[in-house]
Parts: sequence; C-alpha cells; structure tokens
Amino acid sequence: MNISIFDSTLRDGAQAEGISFSVNDKLEIVRALDGLGVHYIEAGNPASNPKELEFFRRAEELTLGGAKLCAFGSTRRKGIAAQQDANCAALLEANTAAVSVFGKSSLLHVAEILKTTPEENLAMIEDSCRFFAGHGRETVFDAEHFFDGYALDPAYALASLEAAARGGAEVLCLCDTNGGTFPWTVEEVTRTVCGRFPGLCVGIHAHNDSDTATAASLAAVRAGARQVQGTLLGFGERAGNASLCGIIPNLQLKLGYACLAPEQMEQLTSVALHVASIANVTVRRNTPFVGESAFAHKAGMHADGVLKNSASFEQIDPAAVGNRRRFLVSEFAGKAAVLRRVQKLYPAVGAQSPAVAQIVAALKEKEFQGYSYEGADASFDLLIRKAIEEPPSYFDLVSYKVLDELSRDNERNATATLKLCVRDEMKITAAEGEGPVHALDVALRKALTDFYPVLRTVRLLDYKVRIMESTAGTGTKVRVLITSGDSETQWTTVGVSTDIIEATWEALVDAIVYKLLENEGG
Amino acid sequence: MNISIFDSTLRDGAQAEGISFSVNDKLEIVRALDGLGVHYIEAGNPASNPKELEFFRRAEELTLGGAKLCAFGSTRRKGIAAQQDANCAALLEANTAAVSVFGKSSLLHVAEILKTTPEENLAMIEDSCRFFAGHGRETVFDAEHFFDGYALDPAYALASLEAAARGGAEVLCLCDTNGGTFPWTVEEVTRTVCGRFPGLCVGIHAHNDSDTATAASLAAVRAGARQVQGTLLGFGERAGNASLCGIIPNLQLKLGYACLAPEQMEQLTSVALHVASIANVTVRRNTPFVGESAFAHKAGMHADGVLKNSASFEQIDPAAVGNRRRFLVSEFAGKAAVLRRVQKLYPAVGAQSPAVAQIVAALKEKEFQGYSYEGADASFDLLIRKAIEEPPSYFDLVSYKVLDELSRDNERNATATLKLCVRDEMKITAAEGEGPVHALDVALRKALTDFYPVLRTVRLLDYKVRIMESTAGTGTKVRVLITSGDSETQWTTVGVSTDIIEATWEALVDAIVYKLLENEGG
Repeated sequence: MNISIFDSTLRDGAQAEGISFSVNDKLEIVRALDGLGVHYIEAGNPASNPKELEFFRRAEELTLGGAKLCAFGSTRRKGIAAQQDANCAALLEANTAAVSVFGKSSLLHVAEILKTTPEENLAMIEDSCRFFAGHGRETVFDAEHFFDGYALDPAYALASLEAAARGGAEVLCLCDTNGGTFPWTVEEVTRTVCGRFPGLCVGIHAHNDSDTATAASLAAVRAGARQVQGTLLGFGERAGNASLCGIIPNLQLKLGYACLAPEQMEQLTSVALHVASIANVTVRRNTPFVGESAFAHKAGMHADGVLKNSASFEQIDPAAVGNRRRFLVSEFAGKAAVLRRVQKLYPAVGAQSPAVAQIVAALKEKEFQGYSYEGADASFDLLIRKAIEEPPSYFDLVSYKVLDELSRDNERNATATLKLCVRDEMKITAAEGEGPVHALDVALRKALTDFYPVLRTVRLLDYKVRIMESTAGTGTKVRVLITSGDSETQWTTVGVSTDIIEATWEALVDAIVYKLLENEGG
Repeated sequence: MNISIFDSTLRDGAQAEGISFSVNDKLEIVRALDGLGVHYIEAGNPASNPKELEFFRRAEELTLGGAKLCAFGSTRRKGIAAQQDANCAALLEANTAAVSVFGKSSLLHVAEILKTTPEENLAMIEDSCRFFAGHGRETVFDAEHFFDGYALDPAYALASLEAAARGGAEVLCLCDTNGGTFPWTVEEVTRTVCGRFPGLCVGIHAHNDSDTATAASLAAVRAGARQVQGTLLGFGERAGNASLCGIIPNLQLKLGYACLAPEQMEQLTSVALHVASIANVTVRRNTPFVGESAFAHKAGMHADGVLKNSASFEQIDPAAVGNRRRFLVSEFAGKAAVLRRVQKLYPAVGAQSPAVAQIVAALKEKEFQGYSYEGADASFDLLIRKAIEEPPSYFDLVSYKVLDELSRDNERNATATLKLCVRDEMKITAAEGEGPVHALDVALRKALTDFYPVLRTVRLLDYKVRIMESTAGTGTKVRVLITSGDSETQWTTVGVSTDIIEATWEALVDAIVYKLLENEGG
C-alpha cells in the first residue's frame, strides 16, 4: 500500500520559533526533499509576503524528480467570489501543480474566529476548491481543527469535507491543528471519514503538542488515511508538527507501507542533517531513527547484547535509514571508521600502522579543542595526509593585519593586508571587503592566483559560524566551516579559534591546500 | 484514579549520550523530583560503580516529602542463591524503600544473551523478588523486553510475571526495552496482563525509538496500568526514555487521572528547566508542554485566534504546567501581536494609533534586511520606544577601529579603538581582546562604565552568529544575537550587517541602551 508523503517544512515548519528561510534556503530544501522522494512539498503561502512570491517564481525554474510543489492558502474571504479574492489569486499565481486550501471544520471557529454563518463557511470551502480545481490544480483541502470540530459537532465537520469534495478537492486532509487529540480518537474518527469518502484520498496533519503526533499519524494510516502531512524534522509552531523522520521509517520498515524507494530511505539521515544545517539548527541527538544517538549503546550490557544479537537492543537496522550503530564505551568503532578513511587515500596502510594510532590521537586532541570533522571531510583528509607524508608547502603565512573601521562620517571600511612566502618569494597583498573576513579571503586569493591559476575556478559556496561554549560571551571559541567548490566538486574545511578571523583563516587555508593537492593528484 | 509516577532520570536517564551526573548533581535532582511530587525516584544501580554506593549512603541523610528512593539491579546470576550474589547484596546495602529488579521475559534473551534454561530464568526472577521482599523492600519487577518476548511466546512472558508475583513483587512493570512496540500493541498486551494479575499494580516502561513512547505509556494506562516509568525530560539511551513531562500533563489535565497535586503540576516547567540545567543540557525549545515555544504563536492568524478564544489554538492553559503563552514577532505576525507588545510598554496606545502602523512597517522593513526579533525582545522594545518617543541619547558613536593581526612570530593580537561622545564629552578608549569582537565589547564597556556605573553589573551571557544568505560566501550578511544579564533578569538584542563587527556593535549598543532605559524606568 502506497502512502503519499507531504512535507510542510517550508510552510508550517517556517512558523517554528527561530526558523527563518531565505529564498535560496527554500530552493535548496526543495531540492533535498525532492531527492529524498517525498511526493508533495508545501512551500509557502504566496499571499503572506513578497518573499514567498519571489520564491515561487524562482521555483518554476527547478527541475524536480518526482515531487510536486504545493502552494498553501486560505479559502476565499466571506461575502466575495473566489475570483475576486486577492489571496486566491496569489495562490494561482504561484503556478504550482498542487494547491492546499485550508478552511474551517469547527463551528466554534466559524462563529468566534471567522464570525460568519455555518452556511457561508461551507460555501467558502466549496467555492474555493472549485476555483482551484477548475484551474487545473490538484487540490488538497486542509480541514482545520477537524478533530476538535468533530467532537463539537460531527455532522458539521463532515459537511465541511463534503463541501470540499463537491468543489473538486482530491485530498481531504484532517488537521489536528491544536495537537490535542489522542491517537485512539484520531484512529476512530479517521475510520469514519474514510468510510464516508471511499473514492477520495484522506490525509492526516498532526501537531505534537501532546507529544503523540507520530502515533496519531500512524493511527490515521491504520484507519485508512493515505496521505501523511508533516515536516521532515518536526519543525512547526509551538511543539512542532508531526515529524516525517519519525513517521516514514515506522510506516515503511515496520508496518509494510511504501513511502520512499529503499535507496532513498537510506538517505533519510543525511537529508535530515542537510535540511537542519540549512535551517541552522542541530538535529537533536536523541531524535528517533536519524539522531546521532538513535543507535548509540552506552550501557556495557546493551553493547554486549547488540554484539551477540543486534535485534536484542535495536528495532531496525540503522543502515536502512542511513544511520549507524555506535558504541560509546568502546574505541573500536572509532578506530575502524578512521582506518576506512585512511585507506581511501592510502590503500596500503593497515590497521596496525602507527600512523593510524597517531591519527586517532590527533583527532581526539582536535575534537577536544573544538574541531568537528563531521561535515569537514577535506580538513580531515589533510589531517590524514599530514600524518602519513608531509604534503608540499604551497605557501607560508608570514603575517596578516585586518582593519575594520567606522569613520566619523559613518563610512565603513574593512581592509586586510597579508604577507605570504610563496615558492621562496615574499608576496604582500592588500584587499578591501564587505567585512573583515571577506577582505582576508579576497587578499589571500589575490596573492595566490598568480602562482596557482587553478584557484581562479574555486568559489566559496558556504560560510558557517558556530559559537561553541556560549557562556563565554563575545570571548568564546568559534568554529568556522567553509564549503568551497569548482565546476566538478565541492569540499568543506574547518577552523577553530576564539578569534573569528583566525578561525576563518585556518579554514580558508585548508580549502586552498586541499584543492592544490587534489589538482596535483589528478 | 491515581497513577504512580516513577522517574528514572538518575538511572536510565544517565545512560544517555552526553549525560553524566556527579553525586551532588544526583542529590540535587532527587530534591527537585521530590518537590515535584513524583512517587518513586530510581536513582542508580549500586552494583555498577562505587560512585553509586556513595550516592545512596549520602541519600539516606535526605529528608524527602513523598518520594520513595529506589535502587535498581538485575536478578541473581544463574546457578547461585540470591543470598550469595554480590549484586543483590549491593542492592540491599543501598538501603532504599523500594527496589527494582530486572529480569528476562523473552525466550530469545534467555537463550542468546543470558545463555541459560527457561526454568532457571524463572527461578532467578522468583528467588530475587523473594529475597528483596523478604528484606522488607517494596519490590518492582522490571520485565525486560516484555513486549518482544510476548510476541515471541506469550505464555513464557506471562510466566516470568507469575514468577515475580510468587516471589512477592508488588509492581509488575512491562518494559518495551527496544522501544519498537506500537501503542496499540502495548494497549492490547497490557490489558491481557492486567486481567491476569488483578491484585497487583502493573507498570509501563517505554522507550522512544519509534517516537511513540508517550502514546504507548498513555495506551498502557488506558488498559489498566497504574505505574508509569519514564525520565522527566526523556533522557535515556538511544532515542531516550518516555518523557514524564509529556505523559503527566496528558494523564492529569486531559484524561482525568491524578498524578501530582495541582500546585506541583504548576512547577512542572520550572523543575524541568532545573533538572536540565543540572544535566547541562537545554530543554529543546519545542518540547511539548514545558518547552519555551510550546505555547508560542507566530502565524498572525493563530495569534489572532488565540486572542479571540484561547482554546482555538491551545489545548490546555499554559499556566497549569507553569509555562506561558508568547506571541512571536515576525513577518508572519499580524498587527494584533505587535499591538500587544506596544501596549505592554504604552498601555494607552490603541489599535488605531499611527505609531502601531509605523511599527508594523518598520518591522517588515527590518525583517527584509535580515533582522529577526523573535528571540530579541529587547531590540524590539527599543524599536517600539523609538517609534513612540525619542528615548534619551546616552552616547553617540563617533568612530571605531578594530585591528586584528597575526605577526611574523605567530603572535595574535586584537585591538579596538573607540571614539564616543558621552554627555557632550569626547571619550576615546582602546582595549585588547580574545578576538576583534571581544576587543570591541571590552572597549565599549570601558568607555561607558564611568558614566553609567550600573553597567558594571551587566554580563554577556550568550553570543550567537547566524549567516543569512549562505551562498554569498564570506561576503554574506550575518545576524548577531547577544544575550545580556544582570542579577535579576536577562535580555536579548540583535544586529545585522555584512560585517560581523558592525553587526555585533549594533547588538551591543542595543543591549546597553536597553539596560539604561530600564534602569531609568525602575
């Protein structure tokens, strides 16, 4: 049985506190979700602000694999035709394959929030669905507060779905907007709805206020729902939306439904990490299925049990979701992983080589200082190369000086002066930039491209700063991650210091040395 | 109906990655949990290491309100009497009112992990329970892997419970040790068990690997379980244990069971924060019921709805769990949320005031530039004040110059020079720092404290940097958030620029001006 997966990270997820996506962030997340194989990507409300419409304009240029983009908005306002409604017009203008329209299913909300009659609300739902379906949009009706509305007046809640069905909606999605409904109630009510609308797809949209959103979503599928709405990592207003990373593995790996192709399922952990990094949040360590600790065994007894029989303390194979088993007490796992990385570069190096032990020790020391090589493969490769053979010295830093000024007449100015020794030649350059970090970056490239023209093709793709011990205020250590790329590949490097400029310098130098080494190798 | 709450933060919770408690931490958490009103505090395995026994020795000196301390350990080893077993002896030595003994309920584990006969395993369970009950301990039998064992061989799983009951256990706790069992199965199996042991208390111990631990615990209670084991914040191995902060409010505020006294329930959020701070972790913002965002409304529509009728987007009153409702200010927020914030400072300002429209417009413009006021209440307050009355000018920046150098001999040096006009006086200061940002921070404080001694009490608590358009590389815009605090309160401010130093400067200035304004007001 296929389940249609509907991700709302870019719409409901963007309503989470602390989450704010730029247009580029949104485009990148669309690509990531499409690669994962979700079926619908609800990407925003085009009527809410100008940034949303700009996104939908640019999204038209994307070539997607299987996902359909979906724009979200409300039914027409009371008392006017959908054709005259500016929000409905904006939704059409977004030009997406699918449209989700939310309307009221609860009489409480009709009376107190919308302040209209029960009949006009039903007409608003029907008209709006007909408007979008008539314009060729696949129309999803989001029945807001459906379960609360059903508890209050089941006939009216069902009437709201009937209005949507009459209007041409293809999916009737039951929303637990407050997140207060228990899974057993969701199951019972969903079963009733599925019996009433045998020809239509019924969906579930749960929120996690009761800490039961995953269970409620699964319960709805048991009752016959065939579309699950959620956000990949559970981002969402208040306690968040149902988390697709929690729901998908349960449905597919344990209950036998089909959501994603198996090879896409194996990307679940890495796509989750990617989306989190775009959102600039960390995936909580103990997140089920995709968290760093989800398959980590600390108690000796558990580790022992897993080694005897992995089913003894693991419900699924971690590899099925692209995660991995870890033994926190044992260093064995660490060394095996390091060895694999070493052998990628130097296949002849064996487990007993002193270089491997030296690299493990260096890694521990660096991690203690605050480095993290997860996501900074290029810097880790350099660490390995330095331990095994001294790589050529392409340049040496003699000194730098970075000056950032705000002058009396409010002119801002950032300048970097750099002194390098390149192939026994002293080279001094200076550059201005948008800020001190940028100025240093420009000066370094300027100094090196005469010697190494290949660097002209290298661009900086991403620059991230993380504060490490937040309690030390502005004097704290920062970790800088730089992603660089050329036409063929991209690589990420890391630097750590209490001084953001020094940390950036370190990551920049790694990025350039990595490229020059690769260039020689090729 | 009373439900007995059994917290295992100090035992199962301590098996979480990154969690490590000192003896003092543990004593402090016992006091906090006792104050909250939980009934059992499982505080460790006295046989596992010497720290645990030291803790139990010192715990005897605690005067607890209503909670019973519980020591945890395994059944006797195979082939010897409980009297001769060192682990059983250590458990007795802990001298607690209650003891929890775990034993195997799954034939798979009996054969593959324990490597003994089914009969000897049952004897181990019965003997051990009899040993502790005979020494006057209230005995809880933790039936490990109960649900997996029941799926494999229901008769044997039930036989393990019968053995414990014969031995004198008062609580039969059904453990979903792998966290793989769905709530509906937990409910069905628990109902069978409750039918078989009408005179005994049945407990539930769930893990969150399937993201359904709260739902499974609630399902067990529906089926007749009367003890719920979990950890206050869901700490635990892998994806964690069932979270009592998720379970207790559901049971008591929504399902009508009695867990805590109402005035204790109102401490739930603060006790959760307290325990998290002892464990040195943050409570995830979107944690149901007790997270900072659990009752935060961002979408304009939702904020509007909550103001009209709080039940419209809130399942319970936040005050019942000691949390609070918040309206976030953002591009999604409507005028209603802004007005509320304005009226907090200026109660006389009405919805029609032109100042409100002006603030909404300024907010949109600032957010377009990259500001975000969600976590930066103090900067937003200043934005309001500036729109309504011109606040006093405490100082004006004339110029700054920040120099960051790495010299030939690898000496790093960051210096800031600052020229301010304070009360018509020109003031020049310079300072060194750990990095350029820190140097600027130190110089600014140095310049101002002579004029405003109250600033001496202000500390920088947190400093965060967020890169906004990551594709622009090192030339991108950054958003800086600074949290400052004194002995009474804390506040957060924001700055945005392509230049990290300028962005920091902006947030620093807001932080100081905010404090000076508050100081005058008070």
